[in-house]
Amino acid sequence: MTHHHKSAQSASARHRVVIVGGGFGGLYAAKHLGNSGAEVLLIDRRNFHLFQPLLYQVATGGLSPGDISSPLRAVLKRYRNIRVIKGVVSEIDAAGKNVLLEDGSRCGYDTLILAAGTRHHYFGNPGWERRAPGLKTIEDALEMRRRIFQAFESAEREPDPDLQAAWLTFLVIGGGPTGVELAGALAELAYATLKDDFRRIDPRSAKIILLEGSPRILSAYPETLSQKARRSLEKLGVEVRSGTLVVDIRDDRVTLQANGESTALASRTVLWGAGVQAAPLGAQLAETAGVALDNIGRVTVDSHLNPEGHPEIFVIGDLARCAGADGAALPGVAPVAMQQGRYAARMIRQRLRGRTLPPFRYVNKGNLAVIGRNAAVADLGYARFSGWPAWLVWVFVHIAYLIEYDNRVLVLFQWAMNYITRKRGARLITGERLE
Amino acid sequence: MTHHHKSAQSASARHRVVIVGGGFGGLYAAKHLGNSGAEVLLIDRRNFHLFQPLLYQVATGGLSPGDISSPLRAVLKRYRNIRVIKGVVSEIDAAGKNVLLEDGSRCGYDTLILAAGTRHHYFGNPGWERRAPGLKTIEDALEMRRRIFQAFESAEREPDPDLQAAWLTFLVIGGGPTGVELAGALAELAYATLKDDFRRIDPRSAKIILLEGSPRILSAYPETLSQKARRSLEKLGVEVRSGTLVVDIRDDRVTLQANGESTALASRTVLWGAGVQAAPLGAQLAETAGVALDNIGRVTVDSHLNPEGHPEIFVIGDLARCAGADGAALPGVAPVAMQQGRYAARMIRQRLRGRTLPPFRYVNKGNLAVIGRNAAVADLGYARFSGWPAWLVWVFVHIAYLIEYDNRVLVLFQWAMNYITRKRGARLITGERLE
Repeated sequence: MTHHHKSAQSASARHRVVIVGGGFGGLYAAKHLGNSGAEVLLIDRRNFHLFQPLLYQVATGGLSPGDISSPLRAVLKRYRNIRVIKGVVSEIDAAGKNVLLEDGSRCGYDTLILAAGTRHHYFGNPGWERRAPGLKTIEDALEMRRRIFQAFESAEREPDPDLQAAWLTFLVIGGGPTGVELAGALAELAYATLKDDFRRIDPRSAKIILLEGSPRILSAYPETLSQKARRSLEKLGVEVRSGTLVVDIRDDRVTLQANGESTALASRTVLWGAGVQAAPLGAQLAETAGVALDNIGRVTVDSHLNPEGHPEIFVIGDLARCAGADGAALPGVAPVAMQQGRYAARMIRQRLRGRTLPPFRYVNKGNLAVIGRNAAVADLGYARFSGWPAWLVWVFVHIAYLIEYDNRVLVLFQWAMNYITRKRGARLITGERLE
Repeated sequence: MTHHHKSAQSASARHRVVIVGGGFGGLYAAKHLGNSGAEVLLIDRRNFHLFQPLLYQVATGGLSPGDISSPLRAVLKRYRNIRVIKGVVSEIDAAGKNVLLEDGSRCGYDTLILAAGTRHHYFGNPGWERRAPGLKTIEDALEMRRRIFQAFESAEREPDPDLQAAWLTFLVIGGGPTGVELAGALAELAYATLKDDFRRIDPRSAKIILLEGSPRILSAYPETLSQKARRSLEKLGVEVRSGTLVVDIRDDRVTLQANGESTALASRTVLWGAGVQAAPLGAQLAETAGVALDNIGRVTVDSHLNPEGHPEIFVIGDLARCAGADGAALPGVAPVAMQQGRYAARMIRQRLRGRTLPPFRYVNKGNLAVIGRNAAVADLGYARFSGWPAWLVWVFVHIAYLIEYDNRVLVLFQWAMNYITRKRGARLITGERLE
């Protein structure tokens, strides 16, 4: 307790930084403010950082939640100037420079770093969420995992062939990296991992369909890579339908629209990898502090990552609408958030010394998407490749960016096991009500 | 599909075995019936086998659920005579030799192996369950984990010193192996793992109290080992109160009775490691087939593991009340269930050849309980020891009995990491309602 009072006293004169969100942006900002002169408070609703790019592996039974999560306190414990609070921010009081928490407490700041991220977006169809869960949290991934593995169990028990086929039809909505990775993992699951596990159904008869509204999947990537990704998916057994819109999702079927025609597909398992929208704190800041938002609710920031008129607020990561060198908005991916987090931290350190930094410039080290065992696409700017070399790059980039050493070894080991045995041992169905 | 019809035809003449429950008893019975002449159906409400002896490690953040679970289908896939159904058994129709499932389907049997296990028992105080969760399922362990880690988070946020102390007081009810292991792990957590993680509280000020109603903890073990276990726990910082009964559990306090005196302890986290009772299928079988039950609802079986008058029914594992060589009931531990599962399977194989087996005899290879890093007690019959050697035995026995190779390597690796870094990386707080 003496320790606490001491640090509280010496801190009163220090610059107070509050970081909202412990994702890639917030965590990297915190780490780069570690042992700086600032007094840092990191607030997150969870007690762990989640390595979201591998969440689809949890959803498909390849990894356990603990493998891709790092306790925020453990990651930051050696920085004595950083405090972590597990709490939910209800409001930013930009005029009073306060962050208000749901439990009624308030935390004053001199500089605020807002990194609250995004959530799913069902394009005005909130009813779809129950039928087509997205993939943002551990709970989302466990729910997806439950539905995927329960579908095979239900098919095994179903005597009616039509209903059985509906249990064995998996629809993945959205042809971005998440949708592509999910569809590829599902194909591996049905066509390799589970092939000998059942006695009445043949999992190899499962249909996996990837739906994309625009003319091609991975539309943010060069067209040649999109084509390669599509061919790789088809080789794995995935049916890719681009230019296809989802117009309705019911309990037993999904209605699609392509070329002006409607068709209904019988399917019991629909996975959402499509739209995202900014966290509501962005809208709240727009209302009270007059910052500008874009069409999906992201806060528009200038080249120093500040919203207009608020140099004391940094908005980073998926919550920010930040223009890249070509004027287009930077994509909502982990490397952008990490670089912005580091930039905000370095800017605060410079300002404390009365200096500043040149504008933020995103260094794009490349785009990667994995399709399955040995198959990925990579666009490193100076080189584009696919297949096994891209897959290797994908494996090592993802392992290198895991936050903690033990997570890295765990994930590497599990992948090696999954690669050799194709087993996916983390395929528990949990979370059901068991009286 | 042709495959299915073929096996259904050839199976019609074969001896049908239905196994209810995929715990140690049921799974070992199934494995020992693998590739036998019998047609085997294993029914479990979960799709995985759970290594319950390590569940306390999930509850305290040392392991992930997937590390101690094995998909039943994966474990049994190479035995083509075994089918697995994920389903809930609602009734045994002993007269008609049918097992009825909750979804209305029925499965006929020639021989039934009932291995449905136990559940928590709150001694007639059902209201206690909400406040003092037990440790039988993955969901139980995640709920315990959530409460333990949330208690430290709440203490960090709590300004009132008395309320803060209540958040930092952990009561473990029941001085059997589960309670001892939980208390030891909590001590490691508070006094080593978390010691630098907070800024306002000192986790080393946490109180961990182990409550046991009888005069000594580990009462099934020799008295010298009970004493050693107690001393080891006290050395770790656990307060052991034997001869102490819990008479009331409220939201903010627990009332205890010892030596005729009542005291109230302020605590927000109460963990239940005390009573168990048999699964309701035992009582249902007593009602319809007239089998005898003991006082905690277990089915009394003879020396061939059959209830009286039902040689076609084996009851094994925690659900059975089976007398040992000394006439006392065998304890509800994994080795008993495994040996009984193997015995039932071998008896069925012998009967198919018109032969029989001598009565079941439990071979007690020893009792083990772990207290913490480097500390355990072991009673191998011919030798009793404690401390570091007992701990090493404990580690290797538990790893050896994990069902699958990859689980073994995963657990061994995580333990090595936890041992070196004392980190317990799987300490996520999940399952809360977000937003």
